[in-house]
Amino acid sequence: MIGVGRSETRLKNALEAGLLTAIATSPEQAAAADVVIGCTPVNRLAGDLSAMIDACSDDAIHTDAGSVKGPLCRDLSQHTRFVGAHPLAGSEKSGWEHADADLFAGRTSIVTPLPTNDPTARATVIEFWTMIGMETVVMSPDDHDQAVAETSHLPHIAAAAVTRQLSPWCETLVAAGFRDTTRVAAGDAGMWAAIAEANARAITTQIDQLTSELGVLKQAITDKDEDAVRSWFAEAANIRNRLRFE
Amino acid sequence: MIGVGRSETRLKNALEAGLLTAIATSPEQAAAADVVIGCTPVNRLAGDLSAMIDACSDDAIHTDAGSVKGPLCRDLSQHTRFVGAHPLAGSEKSGWEHADADLFAGRTSIVTPLPTNDPTARATVIEFWTMIGMETVVMSPDDHDQAVAETSHLPHIAAAAVTRQLSPWCETLVAAGFRDTTRVAAGDAGMWAAIAEANARAITTQIDQLTSELGVLKQAITDKDEDAVRSWFAEAANIRNRLRFE
Repeated sequence: MIGVGRSETRLKNALEAGLLTAIATSPEQAAAADVVIGCTPVNRLAGDLSAMIDACSDDAIHTDAGSVKGPLCRDLSQHTRFVGAHPLAGSEKSGWEHADADLFAGRTSIVTPLPTNDPTARATVIEFWTMIGMETVVMSPDDHDQAVAETSHLPHIAAAAVTRQLSPWCETLVAAGFRDTTRVAAGDAGMWAAIAEANARAITTQIDQLTSELGVLKQAITDKDEDAVRSWFAEAANIRNRLRFE
Repeated sequence: MIGVGRSETRLKNALEAGLLTAIATSPEQAAAADVVIGCTPVNRLAGDLSAMIDACSDDAIHTDAGSVKGPLCRDLSQHTRFVGAHPLAGSEKSGWEHADADLFAGRTSIVTPLPTNDPTARATVIEFWTMIGMETVVMSPDDHDQAVAETSHLPHIAAAAVTRQLSPWCETLVAAGFRDTTRVAAGDAGMWAAIAEANARAITTQIDQLTSELGVLKQAITDKDEDAVRSWFAEAANIRNRLRFE
């Protein structure tokens, strides 16, 4: 378990904490890796994985944990042993101090192979995510990006927007509903800016759809159309009640 | 502890479960109450509390647990022993089966007296919420309605809108972020329609502000203005990180 990163201090601490068996501050120092998992921010993944692909043997297999798949899989499409993936698990906290051995258990990892991928690489990547306890779902990179715009990126944006509209004098009056609805808004801004850039088209489309949903409700409230207002909330409750988590 | 409701069957079940010491299906049957807590939906509270005020002795003191205070406190302003309140605690579940003795512990109850209130009634209502473990905050009914539009009603609407935009094929791909962000969207549609009607002005204003926040982000993404996108997310994270819950 070789940890590759920029900060030797951070890596040494993680090594001493027992999370790693070796550390490396350059791709060359990690060239012995059989399977490489790219976990850097989405705007760095293509470059970082390219460097690892160049440093490692041709037999090495590469995957990643990034939240956007289209641009990355296109950028690396010449490397037939890179198979993109996105484990749907995480938290608003970053750093090895927040590592959780059960984080992936029972969760879903989306794997986004290309038709040109090496079949062994594809099978190994699926096996890797399965080995750490995840269910895998295979889809195209673009389908993935549309799905996570709906299931992850838009919820994050809505949570952040709800947080941004809070007046300072109301900050002491928040309760459990606000807490849960906005939990993800504490996430790293740089990471989310990179996601927004990488998945710009799907995200802006979903922002439009959210704005449209809000407009429908506002009109119904303004019209005092009680049936329409109730139906609007009821449809949301129906969908929410049929979702299953973990 | 007299439970007053419409369904004798439901009341009897709650009585047998030990949550009540007596039951009543009309205000007259509960006329012996010293303190009355109105807990019906916000569009029924004024009528239900008026009936209780008429049935009970002039010494009885009345409060409520409704999420909107302005219309109710105006409707009941002639009754100097009614003092509005809103305990900031609850869940998306309804019914006595989901009762939780710790629900109020350490949470805040907003009390919204009018200048014309009887001072004894005001003090007793504050004492009541304090006795069940809550901190009390006093403000005007209209300030309350603005605050909860920001802290509770808009988060609920955003959660419902995020849930409504989810495509059926993505329903199996939701994870912890979606789960928490949309938890409240499972709430009772009739209750939320009544809240939306009662607090229409503050809510539509907050919908406009949320739409504006979303527009700012969309423009920054479209312009590929990375600094503006990061700042947008960073401001949300800053606010979220300084909030304290429970």
